[in-house]
Amino acid sequence: MLHAFVLVHADPPDIARVAEQLAEVPGVTEVFSVAGGVCDVVAIVRVRAHEDLVEVVTGRVTAVPGVRRTTTLVAFQAYSRHDLEALWDLGPA
Amino acid sequence: MLHAFVLVHADPPDIARVAEQLAEVPGVTEVFSVAGGVCDVVAIVRVRAHEDLVEVVTGRVTAVPGVRRTTTLVAFQAYSRHDLEALWDLGPA
Amino acid sequence: MLHAFVLVHADPPDIARVAEQLAEVPGVTEVFSVAGGVCDVVAIVRVRAHEDLVEVVTGRVTAVPGVRRTTTLVAFQAYSRHDLEALWDLGPA
Amino acid sequence: MLHAFVLVHADPPDIARVAEQLAEVPGVTEVFSVAGGVCDVVAIVRVRAHEDLVEVVTGRVTAVPGVRRTTTLVAFQAYSRHDLEALWDLGPA
Amino acid sequence: MLHAFVLVHADPPDIARVAEQLAEVPGVTEVFSVAGGVCDVVAIVRVRAHEDLVEVVTGRVTAVPGVRRTTTLVAFQAYSRHDLEALWDLGPA
Amino acid sequence: MLHAFVLVHADPPDIARVAEQLAEVPGVTEVFSVAGGVCDVVAIVRVRAHEDLVEVVTGRVTAVPGVRRTTTLVAFQAYSRHDLEALWDLGPA
Amino acid sequence: MLHAFVLVHADPPDIARVAEQLAEVPGVTEVFSVAGGVCDVVAIVRVRAHEDLVEVVTGRVTAVPGVRRTTTLVAFQAYSRHDLEALWDLGPA
Amino acid sequence: MLHAFVLVHADPPDIARVAEQLAEVPGVTEVFSVAGGVCDVVAIVRVRAHEDLVEVVTGRVTAVPGVRRTTTLVAFQAYSRHDLEALWDLGPA
Amino acid sequence: MLHAFVLVHADPPDIARVAEQLAEVPGVTEVFSVAGGVCDVVAIVRVRAHEDLVEVVTGRVTAVPGVRRTTTLVAFQAYSRHDLEALWDLGPA
Amino acid sequence: MLHAFVLVHADPPDIARVAEQLAEVPGVTEVFSVAGGVCDVVAIVRVRAHEDLVEVVTGRVTAVPGVRRTTTLVAFQAYSRHDLEALWDLGPA
Repeated sequence: MLHAFVLVHADPPDIARVAEQLAEVPGVTEVFSVAGGVCDVVAIVRVRAHEDLVEVVTGRVTAVPGVRRTTTLVAFQAYSRHDLEALWDLGPA
Repeated sequence: MLHAFVLVHADPPDIARVAEQLAEVPGVTEVFSVAGGVCDVVAIVRVRAHEDLVEVVTGRVTAVPGVRRTTTLVAFQAYSRHDLEALWDLGPA
Repeated sequence: MLHAFVLVHADPPDIARVAEQLAEVPGVTEVFSVAGGVCDVVAIVRVRAHEDLVEVVTGRVTAVPGVRRTTTLVAFQAYSRHDLEALWDLGPA
Repeated sequence: MLHAFVLVHADPPDIARVAEQLAEVPGVTEVFSVAGGVCDVVAIVRVRAHEDLVEVVTGRVTAVPGVRRTTTLVAFQAYSRHDLEALWDLGPA
Repeated sequence: MLHAFVLVHADPPDIARVAEQLAEVPGVTEVFSVAGGVCDVVAIVRVRAHEDLVEVVTGRVTAVPGVRRTTTLVAFQAYSRHDLEALWDLGPA
Repeated sequence: MLHAFVLVHADPPDIARVAEQLAEVPGVTEVFSVAGGVCDVVAIVRVRAHEDLVEVVTGRVTAVPGVRRTTTLVAFQAYSRHDLEALWDLGPA
Repeated sequence: MLHAFVLVHADPPDIARVAEQLAEVPGVTEVFSVAGGVCDVVAIVRVRAHEDLVEVVTGRVTAVPGVRRTTTLVAFQAYSRHDLEALWDLGPA
Repeated sequence: MLHAFVLVHADPPDIARVAEQLAEVPGVTEVFSVAGGVCDVVAIVRVRAHEDLVEVVTGRVTAVPGVRRTTTLVAFQAYSRHDLEALWDLGPA
Repeated sequence: MLHAFVLVHADPPDIARVAEQLAEVPGVTEVFSVAGGVCDVVAIVRVRAHEDLVEVVTGRVTAVPGVRRTTTLVAFQAYSRHDLEALWDLGPA
Repeated sequence: MLHAFVLVHADPPDIARVAEQLAEVPGVTEVFSVAGGVCDVVAIVRVRAHEDLVEVVTGRVTAVPGVRRTTTLVAFQAYSRHDLEALWDLGPA
């Protein structure tokens, strides 16, 4: 499984709607409006293959109206006490 | 449930070890070494109460040797098609 | 009690009005126009629960006309010689 | 009454101690360890006169061991539904 | 006497006019267009009391057309071989 | 007359001493420790000729122990209701 | 052979089209849409002479509609196990 | 094929050696010392699978002595008039 | 002789024209479009007196259409094996 | 002729010596200590061929003791009323 964090910048009035619409995008498992000043919204992407990652980020996320800028942190390696594959059962590898 | 993303800076040789040790901290559900210029490691914290968040971030995460700097993005709101409470069954509210 | 500092950016002509309107938001106890270049206005939020923090910051503060950008510093822990709970008697926990 | 926010940078292991010691400085009414990338600790200074502000910030705050860098936001104007003078009864003007 | 430096950003074509108009503001003793990239104009404010500082900076300086952004450095302490009080005789303390 | 603002960075414990020593440098008319995130100390240089500016800034100011970094804003033009030449009578042009 | 990396900033909806059009520019051998936040697209330029580099970057790349900003990293020296000259047979030196 | 650009920071005296050693790392096809303020060295990584990317960047590149900091731009999509797969024949998919 | 470097920011399509027009300004001896991301154009100013520098930079350079922002680096001292005064014979001191 | 500006960072006490030594490097025609926050020293490189540029910048300039960091702006195109080739007669093309 591939993971990525998409840090999204949006204008204050759009944040809630952008977060809701991002959560509907297949491959995006969780979205959070966040404090701290680095960005306004964080979307977690979990997919099977690199092509899916490309489609989700450059095809779907950036197309959501109100998304002004994105910074995608592609995960190299995942570390967890939990069995992420099982937890996020995304279907056949 | 409260969520937060701890963006961690560490020197290149320490990244893997820091990520492994962070994944052992109770309250930290997933840790990722990441590409991109924003930080080196992202740790996702999921806890019941604000006090737990304080303990995990200021008590445990910053104490891991090799953690040079942290930026914590506290989540305001979570949006997901998945039932995060059930998924991350953290015990009684 | 949860505390947070909302650092607000506004255009120079709007600063005074924005500060006044922020001071009317329930949960915002004090607002200051500030020098120094980091931001234009600081609003101190003191609330009972995380949900209140979410409502005040993402619901009310960002909705004030003239608020261009916000950075919210959520407080982990408070340290004071004063009894903040008593001082800012916010009603039942 | 004059107000100022001192944004303090400290290394992760020193944050708690620095915050505690800052809270003991006369003129510092509240100190918070905070999340977000802007700084590590925020100290609120409330004093009668400019000279007190100088003494507290350049004399006392910067002298606390572990304070690596400070950025002081001097408040121009305060806005609040509360009577701050009464609340923080600092003695004769 | 209180001192402050207001670092002003203005678009290139407006710089000369903005500097001239700032020099007319009571409490602003000297204004300079400057090289160096940190800002475009520096205005030195010398006043008796904190309220005057507030009025000059947030009331008058930011109201000058063409002032896009300001960063105010409030002076803590002044050091000089010259008797600044005499030099800038501002009238009764 | 040539003017320049030297923005000085120094470690917190050195600020007062650095400001005092800078005030003793011929050509430096006023020095201020300042609040705000831009720098720690501002020294105002007023000299007759470019060579003096070079000597004061690169020869004397940077030699003061504790001066970590300097940014010099050379003034293009001065604007003032006051006769600066008379005020700062620096001797023959 | 001269090499250069042109880091291109474009608005999210334009990224794919900009990358495609850049790949058609003679002298541009490969173009990538990228994650990481430093830029949106990287174009690799490989040419015979400095004049070609000037023509490709300042003449062609910046003329592609949607290119908002470019940062060109001119390569000093190339290091590779592969024979880049042969690989990218650009015709006579 | 997966592509990534590793932007490497190294101290001036180490740049040439670091670039040479990076060019020896399997999966790194080309390395360039570069002008401009973004970084000192760019290494192009071309590999078959995500795991290879992880091994090359976090295992090998960061281990080269003199590599102070890295920023990895993972490519989403490649665009080229050339057949990159054939050009960089990396063995079986 | 006084020297200064004016670092100019312009939108990509305007760069060539802005550079050409800057080269026509008396006092500007050389202009270069540059790579590297710090700015888009560098203009070298060589003049006799400070007033000329003021006129060239704030009067002429910033007036060229397309100049969005300028940062002027005033030279303190020149070092060269060449006799710059002779080379750039600007007429009587 | 190829031109480049090497923006050099050095610690305040080293600036004069670094500038002198850079002026002795063949290919470096002029060096200036400069005001402003962008860098401390600017060296102008004028050479015949790309290889010379590489040798001067990565071989000689970065080797001068006290040079902490360099940013090289390679010129794309030169614009001047003066015949730069004649002025800086560097010997056969």
